[in-house]
Amino acid sequence: MATVATEPHPTANDAFGPAAALSCRECGHRYELGPRFACEFCFGPLEIAYEFDSTRVTRDAIARGPANMWRYADLLPVPRNVAELPNMNPGLTSLVAADRLAGELGMRSLHVKDDSANPTHSFKDRVVAMAVEAARTFGFTTLSCSSTGNLAGAIGAAAARAGFESCVFIPAGLERGKVVMAAVYGGKVVALDGTYDDVNRFCSELIGDPAGEGWGFVNVNLRPYYAEGSKTLAYEIAEQLGWRLPEQIIVPIASGSQLTKIDKGFQELIKTGLVEDRPYRIFGAQASGCGPVAGAWERGHDVVQPVKPDTIAKSLAIGNPADGPYVLDVCARTGGAVAHVDDGQIVDAMKLLARTEGVFAETAGGVTTGVLRSLLAEGTLDPEAETVVLNTGDGLKTLDAVDSGVTATLAPSLDAFKDAGLL
Amino acid sequence: MATVATEPHPTANDAFGPAAALSCRECGHRYELGPRFACEFCFGPLEIAYEFDSTRVTRDAIARGPANMWRYADLLPVPRNVAELPNMNPGLTSLVAADRLAGELGMRSLHVKDDSANPTHSFKDRVVAMAVEAARTFGFTTLSCSSTGNLAGAIGAAAARAGFESCVFIPAGLERGKVVMAAVYGGKVVALDGTYDDVNRFCSELIGDPAGEGWGFVNVNLRPYYAEGSKTLAYEIAEQLGWRLPEQIIVPIASGSQLTKIDKGFQELIKTGLVEDRPYRIFGAQASGCGPVAGAWERGHDVVQPVKPDTIAKSLAIGNPADGPYVLDVCARTGGAVAHVDDGQIVDAMKLLARTEGVFAETAGGVTTGVLRSLLAEGTLDPEAETVVLNTGDGLKTLDAVDSGVTATLAPSLDAFKDAGLL
Ligand SMILES: [Zn+2]
Ligand SMILES: [Zn+2]
Repeated sequence: MATVATEPHPTANDAFGPAAALSCRECGHRYELGPRFACEFCFGPLEIAYEFDSTRVTRDAIARGPANMWRYADLLPVPRNVAELPNMNPGLTSLVAADRLAGELGMRSLHVKDDSANPTHSFKDRVVAMAVEAARTFGFTTLSCSSTGNLAGAIGAAAARAGFESCVFIPAGLERGKVVMAAVYGGKVVALDGTYDDVNRFCSELIGDPAGEGWGFVNVNLRPYYAEGSKTLAYEIAEQLGWRLPEQIIVPIASGSQLTKIDKGFQELIKTGLVEDRPYRIFGAQASGCGPVAGAWERGHDVVQPVKPDTIAKSLAIGNPADGPYVLDVCARTGGAVAHVDDGQIVDAMKLLARTEGVFAETAGGVTTGVLRSLLAEGTLDPEAETVVLNTGDGLKTLDAVDSGVTATLAPSLDAFKDAGLL
Repeated sequence: MATVATEPHPTANDAFGPAAALSCRECGHRYELGPRFACEFCFGPLEIAYEFDSTRVTRDAIARGPANMWRYADLLPVPRNVAELPNMNPGLTSLVAADRLAGELGMRSLHVKDDSANPTHSFKDRVVAMAVEAARTFGFTTLSCSSTGNLAGAIGAAAARAGFESCVFIPAGLERGKVVMAAVYGGKVVALDGTYDDVNRFCSELIGDPAGEGWGFVNVNLRPYYAEGSKTLAYEIAEQLGWRLPEQIIVPIASGSQLTKIDKGFQELIKTGLVEDRPYRIFGAQASGCGPVAGAWERGHDVVQPVKPDTIAKSLAIGNPADGPYVLDVCARTGGAVAHVDDGQIVDAMKLLARTEGVFAETAGGVTTGVLRSLLAEGTLDPEAETVVLNTGDGLKTLDAVDSGVTATLAPSLDAFKDAGLL
């Protein structure tokens, strides 16, 4: 593999595959690959810069790869033998041809990328899988994070599989399914009285404290590696469409990282020649009760004002999203938009998706599907364009959001059934 | 494809792929493929007989197939174009190399086949996927079943995706996650006051009544097609092991159908030359609170005495298992056994699996893992043999079985964290 002559050379042989350096998203300064996340010069976020090996990155090579996200290992900062290491191996989730939902919405072509099939039933398994590999290389012994719930479960499971300690921090009052799923793997789960943003601040303090020594915070000091996992959603969607970019895609916004990485993934597919270069529009979706990026979009601002979250979409309840400004850039550049729907619309959309496609989404899937419906109604989305909507989580974790229950409880007799008026 | 000259010829072109006829498991009488399930002569259960096309059933052809159970379409009674039809497309779930669990148990080679990654998070998606295709061919308009919970959810989702009505029957008092997951797709969910066996009797009555006209009961009049879905577990395990049969496999017993079909699947792999013929031992796992087959095994009987279930493993709580005698046959023939563990052992095993492998299993996965541990301890299982244990469901649906929760709830400050004694 060619490396960049004028830049720092990765020391750890090929622990990071095609990754060449860390690069500041603001000033472009490059750093050796390591457990750092902010630029020393401008405090901008660092991200991975690559030198892809074009002989390895081919459609055929990918098709021969494993049936999980490691089929794209040659596009990710992971060891070449990653598929053989203890890891949850998420990804290659279904791209559902949503013909019945498309019919109800008057669309020509709609797919649902259903990430609830990941091991802990959210897209977070993808990013944690990346963080685990980086943590292993850097010699961290404990995995940690601030989490709105899904991430805590993904870390608990991945740490158990890979033999790390784990200690995760969540805001008090999360859905029971998320709490149990975080705790069942035997790691520590600490609830903090406050919002996600308070929990996040707490973690930033802990990381600078001796108490956090040897800890890999997946979404802080491992963030550059972690965040790259979201690119695999872009790769999979394109491959599953027959190596073609969708024309429109609706992505939920929590920190905003996922949306920007899907864009990065699409750009890499174009650059490596895996897909044809054609225009795509990226749309960001938020809950009205936590819509700081949507608010900035509506007002035409490029600064995102923090909000205090109040929504049933708890997995998206980040009031001060780190990547908000980059989301605004991507949506503007691609001709997309950022929109929001309220809790009632979220629940309606969850039920619509379940009824038409058999997909029981988390509230976050109600947000994207609700925004899909809303942007179609107002004419912002083109119903003739090939469209993908993301479901990033699982309805089983947010049971309280839907009021579904039994139609009737009866005695086990034919007479009782016939008398109940259900036929 | 060659058909059987002396037997009834399937009328419906290739709606059933390589299936040639229905065959009575007791007397061998053969019937044309249709919505029938019991022999007219001896009342024995009917199952699918095949004429496989050896030019289509090859490792290469399977490897080129879709990343779901339809890669084995040429071994199943489904249309050749099944992958293009609206269906949940379950299967190809992870076979987890459980090295850490193996280490704790002193085993040389252990894998967990984790079927919680299916669309509604249980193996039932596999059998329902089969029933949907048969129902479509037979022109049924409503999908129905008796269910201990997982099946109801699988039918709700599959009916929604494929555009069927659905009406499912469950015993009152099931876990909330299972009830919501059955109801959220918009079909009817009727709870009956009684056990699963009462619900099953009710369905048998309904199927003979005009009220059940046009209804496909997936586990009654579609049962021969439905049951074949379990074979895909056998195919996948063998393919994922590198086209090799495991030496030992631990399978949960509810009706017992799954265990017998895994055996059938292994036999077909041998017959078609996809794997080498080598001995394998099949072990059945039940909860002590519903262990009629284990009881018969212990007593050396070939008749299974019904029991009244009382166990947290509700998805296995079938007191009168239809395939119990066939399970005894398979376990005896292959040199296996049938064993049971109590509710405490089930919960311990769930936690062991979660802590060592990051797999949050349903109670049924606690039953198989508990039986694995118990049979190793008593020397019945060989710790040196290549072993697979099934997890057929998802811990998120049986949250109440584990008492996991937060380690502590604290104020969001470093001092509070350091004072809490968690470091
Ligand atoms: Zn900088
Ligand atoms: Zn017969």
